[in-house]
Order: sequence, then structure tokens, then C-alpha cells
Amino acid sequence: MDIAIAAFENMAALDAIGPFEVLAHLPDATIHWVGLAPGMVRTEEGAGVGINVDELIEEVPNPDIIVIPGGHGEHALRDNQRFMQWLLAAHETSTWTTSVCTGSLLLGAAGLLTGLKATSHWLALDTLRDFGAEPTLERVVEQGKIITAAGVSSGIDMALTLAARVAGDLVAQTIQLGIEYDPQPPFDAGSPLKAPKESVEFLQASSRFLLTGQP
Amino acid sequence: MDIAIAAFENMAALDAIGPFEVLAHLPDATIHWVGLAPGMVRTEEGAGVGINVDELIEEVPNPDIIVIPGGHGEHALRDNQRFMQWLLAAHETSTWTTSVCTGSLLLGAAGLLTGLKATSHWLALDTLRDFGAEPTLERVVEQGKIITAAGVSSGIDMALTLAARVAGDLVAQTIQLGIEYDPQPPFDAGSPLKAPKESVEFLQASSRFLLTGQP
Repeated sequence: MDIAIAAFENMAALDAIGPFEVLAHLPDATIHWVGLAPGMVRTEEGAGVGINVDELIEEVPNPDIIVIPGGHGEHALRDNQRFMQWLLAAHETSTWTTSVCTGSLLLGAAGLLTGLKATSHWLALDTLRDFGAEPTLERVVEQGKIITAAGVSSGIDMALTLAARVAGDLVAQTIQLGIEYDPQPPFDAGSPLKAPKESVEFLQASSRFLLTGQP
Repeated sequence: MDIAIAAFENMAALDAIGPFEVLAHLPDATIHWVGLAPGMVRTEEGAGVGINVDELIEEVPNPDIIVIPGGHGEHALRDNQRFMQWLLAAHETSTWTTSVCTGSLLLGAAGLLTGLKATSHWLALDTLRDFGAEPTLERVVEQGKIITAAGVSSGIDMALTLAARVAGDLVAQTIQLGIEYDPQPPFDAGSPLKAPKESVEFLQASSRFLLTGQP
């Protein structure tokens, strides 16, 4: 089973590494870190982290599973013909096409979400609507072979859901135990419905950056 | 605020990226990816992911916060004098010294956990006892300036706890909302107390690899 995870400049690191840590433990899975150029991309967080592109997108034209992370850098990819052509062609033959966070905006820009229920980072749900999707605050949304996940950390939940589809509940549960995913956040502030009003407003005020890729 | 995250061959990717995604959003924080040699390390999962070492450990001798991830590669570091000397000296002046997963075995090997309550991956708790620590299944354990976290994904919970100590609850809650950490795992299998017996036994049978670094 070939799993392609797209790596690009200014993606969000956890968007990609969350699903990676789950899916890499699937039996007979090969992870392909694919990108536009060989070498390292830097993720979006401050100076970010350097993550290696191991293969060009063209070298992995027919992955079984596609994972598209999000992050500020997503915006620049929307107009990248080369990336979009790969995504569309790969989706033709994929078993599952998935996104995390604003990665769903790339699926939307490719026209894959028209008329479908989908999710994204909570700050990007309106933008998702611009691509003809029906946005929802749900954390993991399955529509046929497309699975979209909410912001950043939700990729872990998405990937465990996907692992169960691909290899059965027991394998997914064993992976969950292996990565000891028994979450106990010290606060219950992970959703705009539950976080302090000040947190919601602060992030809304900063969100122009998230949505346009421009500071 | 200088935050050093150790990057080494065969570390577990999420061990490092979970805390990174949280701590990189602290105000005035600079993340330093430090390691033994310049260039890329590969993480432990299958072919892994390439993560860049941006600075040598010696270039960041006095970080305010130290984050030590775990993973199979931890074992080889226990006998690395250069790494251990850096860790001990950095701990002398750090404000917080933290670990994720089997990263706590490195703190233990450095003698930092003697007589302290501490945690690690659930498969490594007995080994932690060999280093004079008092192991516990708790997810995040704070003992003075040392914080240890349980397996792999627990670094997110640890880092949010730490963010609150460093910058206050509201900042931690805002980071949690930013990364939309509102976990909804599809199964309740993230702890050996709750996972299917078959999952626990399967991982126990594979754990020699986890604990010795040898397949």
C-alpha cells in the first residue's frame, strides 16, 4: 500500500506528522514524502522544522492513499498547475484521498469537494464554502473515498479512522495503543464552541494570515 | 525563550513534532532543532521522515526549555558521552527539562530522575525503574522543573501543560484552539488499561525492539 504525504513550504508540521505516525504503522504500508522539488521544506511555525521531500510528486503518480496537509503554504499551491494536475490524476486512482486542516482547501480548489460535506480548520470553513463544499465543524468527515479532517491535530483522529477502514478495528486500536493516544488535554479549549472568547477573537484577528498566506 | 528539541536517528516523529507544534506558538519562543551532526536524521517509522538538525547541541548550551523525544534510537544515545554531557550541562541552567515517551530513559540514564516520579511509554515503565525513578502510568508528570510525558502522542498534552506554566492558561488555551486540539479518537484504546487484550499482547511481544534498539 503506497501512501503519499505531500510536503510543501509552510505546511503545518503536525498536519502531516499526525497522520504519518498512525499510517506508517499500517501493515505493508510504504510512506512516500512527495513534493515539488528534492530537498527540504520548512514548515510554517516560526522558523519551522525542516522536513525532507524524498520523491517528486511525479514519481508517485498512483498512491493508494493521498494525504494533503494544510498550513499557510497551502495558498500558494492552489495556483500551482503542476501540483493540481498531480492531485487530480492521483485522486482518479486512489483508494482514499484525505486532507488535514486547510489541506481541504486544496481538494476544494481541485474541484473535488463540490457538493460534498467537508471540514477544515475552523477558521477556514467559510473559504471551504467558496469551493462549493458544505462546511461542517465535525472533526472527521467521510464522503465516499474522500476524508477531510479539521484543524492541525485532527489528522491523528482522521488517520485512526482511516486505519480502521483499511486494516480493521483491531489494527487501528493497536496503533492507537502503540502511540499511546489517550488524550488528556489540560484544558477543554480545542474548539471555538468551547474555548475562551478571548482565544477565539485573538485567532480570528490573526486569521487573515491563515487564509491568504500573506502576513 | 530558547527551546531545544533534540533530533536523533530513529526517534519517533510525533514525539518531537507534538510538543514542537505547541511550543513554537509560545510568544517570543525560538525553537532550536539540535543534534549530533548537521543534516538530516530519519525517524523510526518504517522508512521514517527526514527531519533536519539545524544546530549542533554544542551551539545551544543553555536553552530555557529542553525537549527530549523518544523512539528506538534513544537506546544508542544512552552511551553517547557527548550527548549526555550536553544534556546534564543544559539541565543545570534550564528552566524546564522535559521528555516524551522513551525520552525519559535518557533523562534517567543521565541520573536526573533518581527518586522522582516519572512516566514513559507504557512498555518502558519497568526500564524507567532501573534508572531509580518511580514509574507511573500518569500521562504528564511534573516534578520540580522536570516534566516527563507518556508515549508518543502525550507530548501534545505535556506541551500544553508547559505552555500554561510558561505563559499562562489563556495563552495555552489559545494555542490549543489554534491547533484545534479537541481530540475525538474513534476508539478508546490509547492506554493498556483500556485497549483490547490482543493489542496489548501484540505490542508487548514486539517491545524488545522498543527497549533495546535491536530488532
